[in-house]
Amino acid sequence: MEYVDAFTNTMLEIAEQILKAARAIDKKEVLKMLEILLEAKRKGKKIMVVGVGRSGLVGKAFAMRLMHLGFNVYVMGETITPAVKKEDVVIAISGSGATQVVVSVAEAARKMGALVISVTSFPDSSLAKQSHHVVRIPGRTKISLEKDYFARQILGIYEPLAPLGTLFEDTALVFFDSVIVALMKALELDEAELMERHANIEVP
Amino acid sequence: MEYVDAFTNTMLEIAEQILKAARAIDKKEVLKMLEILLEAKRKGKKIMVVGVGRSGLVGKAFAMRLMHLGFNVYVMGETITPAVKKEDVVIAISGSGATQVVVSVAEAARKMGALVISVTSFPDSSLAKQSHHVVRIPGRTKISLEKDYFARQILGIYEPLAPLGTLFEDTALVFFDSVIVALMKALELDEAELMERHANIEVP
Amino acid sequence: MEYVDAFTNTMLEIAEQILKAARAIDKKEVLKMLEILLEAKRKGKKIMVVGVGRSGLVGKAFAMRLMHLGFNVYVMGETITPAVKKEDVVIAISGSGATQVVVSVAEAARKMGALVISVTSFPDSSLAKQSHHVVRIPGRTKISLEKDYFARQILGIYEPLAPLGTLFEDTALVFFDSVIVALMKALELDEAELMERHANIEVP
Amino acid sequence: MEYVDAFTNTMLEIAEQILKAARAIDKKEVLKMLEILLEAKRKGKKIMVVGVGRSGLVGKAFAMRLMHLGFNVYVMGETITPAVKKEDVVIAISGSGATQVVVSVAEAARKMGALVISVTSFPDSSLAKQSHHVVRIPGRTKISLEKDYFARQILGIYEPLAPLGTLFEDTALVFFDSVIVALMKALELDEAELMERHANIEVP
Repeated sequence: MEYVDAFTNTMLEIAEQILKAARAIDKKEVLKMLEILLEAKRKGKKIMVVGVGRSGLVGKAFAMRLMHLGFNVYVMGETITPAVKKEDVVIAISGSGATQVVVSVAEAARKMGALVISVTSFPDSSLAKQSHHVVRIPGRTKISLEKDYFARQILGIYEPLAPLGTLFEDTALVFFDSVIVALMKALELDEAELMERHANIEVP
Repeated sequence: MEYVDAFTNTMLEIAEQILKAARAIDKKEVLKMLEILLEAKRKGKKIMVVGVGRSGLVGKAFAMRLMHLGFNVYVMGETITPAVKKEDVVIAISGSGATQVVVSVAEAARKMGALVISVTSFPDSSLAKQSHHVVRIPGRTKISLEKDYFARQILGIYEPLAPLGTLFEDTALVFFDSVIVALMKALELDEAELMERHANIEVP
Repeated sequence: MEYVDAFTNTMLEIAEQILKAARAIDKKEVLKMLEILLEAKRKGKKIMVVGVGRSGLVGKAFAMRLMHLGFNVYVMGETITPAVKKEDVVIAISGSGATQVVVSVAEAARKMGALVISVTSFPDSSLAKQSHHVVRIPGRTKISLEKDYFARQILGIYEPLAPLGTLFEDTALVFFDSVIVALMKALELDEAELMERHANIEVP
Repeated sequence: MEYVDAFTNTMLEIAEQILKAARAIDKKEVLKMLEILLEAKRKGKKIMVVGVGRSGLVGKAFAMRLMHLGFNVYVMGETITPAVKKEDVVIAISGSGATQVVVSVAEAARKMGALVISVTSFPDSSLAKQSHHVVRIPGRTKISLEKDYFARQILGIYEPLAPLGTLFEDTALVFFDSVIVALMKALELDEAELMERHANIEVP
């Protein structure tokens, strides 16, 4: 049964970290992100989400819900994703803020006049520097803890609990789902209205 | 600032639900899942993951980590996924257990002699019935709460907190990441060994 | 050098088969497909593309170009694909017309009031029977040649030249790209206008 | 009916271009590609395919068939793609040879000791320069015809026939499928053996 104890302890600890993150995330950073998203919706601008690996999967989960809310949203790299245009919003997700291709996309999008929001643990990262707005999400990431000030100082994480970027990715999923609830409130949408747009033919 | 309060409250509540789930999930169900996965690895059998929509994304996040652990793992529907063979393990993810295409895949896989593990909130669902082993994950799902006995009785969830399948999907991600830590312990792998297999060229 | 001869001969023969297909495809079937697509665009309806495996990849290549032409197009199974609604157009691609999940999607879409166009080698297949309009594309498919009347009678293909569904898939890609040129003419669009919508940030 | 004429003419012309390409492609370049792939298979090395947009879809269609032939093949950017290691083979597809992210992947792979094969219309492109071996495929690409010497001199293409990279992509699909037939001959595999590995549960 000892492996199962590792299972339970990890699940409890990840949940505890998400609780701490919920309290640590700067509300002003979230508010500004909400305002940018709502403004883009009013103006009919596109939201484009980009991330690599598991951060990319978290981005897709967010994009799917934004679609349910009626946003004009795309995932970078999917088949029918169009050109980024002026005033579109690019949401770039990277725990380390150092994922090269995400930094490049942010840089290119910025040159095209898009507004870049990055979601990262590192406010001093290359990605953050390419962004108009940064939302800091705690979470030990793949890069050395020495550099992860936010995680170390605010959360007191010193030991690897979950491997690689796990804590960032799990926290980011719950973060984005909470952003969705805030947007539902702002747009006065209920669950039935989301269900209306939800894919009605299920394809993996 | 009121939308931001909705954000913080949701994030806290989802984390609380994950905490409750960590305590509510049946350890014997997890242990059996771990044993099936470890046995498949020893025998050189494939692990195939299937899910639709956001549950599919959670499945991909799990598959990526299984690859880092050295499992021979595939995602159903991706380019290079081969045939399911006898004694392969299919992990089918569906909150409601009623997602038609996932049920069909489970049924087809069972006929081919594969071992089907389902991860669902509904132990009486069509999916669960097609499975050799069921791990129950609490989480209000898209289908009516009336039917969601597990969520209602164990967790005391009565009111929609997050829309549609959100609670299931968020809990499932943390669940699978905790399974990964248990497998790391069982296989005596450390983070450096995972990093060795982690994609070294980042592509979204 | 003998393997290289097999290479050259195959490439020549596939090209010859595409030439024959270009002559054999029924122009009235193509015209009706063009009219349905143009009507959907005028009405602001969605085009949804579905296919499995290599037929699915061909469908994605078509969807990408439809996006370049300004159609409101989605690929079934991708992240931001919304619900199928009345009068949307579903393009279902299957050489054999027997791919179960494609048949199921066609059936479900029909019930929701969508218009189903199937592109297949088998006008008597289950898929064709679920469709409002069928465009027959010759090409030996994965299923037995005995049943592949269109390929056998019109093209005189008796021997496997390329494995499995290759001939269908290669012919279908050129078919769809030719449909794109016809739509460009109908919409009086030139290449520069396509380039305008073409993704300007390249992500794999 | 005039749009339908545009359809038929385009389909005939693309097929003619593929015929010309079949004759124009350098057999020695193909032979060397075949030898590299067969050597990688013998040594148990991985084949990794990368491309953006429609070239990426063509790469996936090739990867799927390589899997059917028993190669250890992955698509860059998919869920379970592992690290690139020494002596792995990277197949980079880009008509222009200038797709930035593909060039970066080729460069990174080369540094890790992988062998890079590029498939492109431009033997002087940045991509070709990062490659150990180049296979030239004719096809007017998205970049100006002025620069597309190979297409202009060998094929005599002066006028846009199909938009953007269409000619390259269609030719590349038939090229790769012909490479598959050559590999089948070399490995003495028949269609039944491919079918054995072909996904037996169809998921879009």
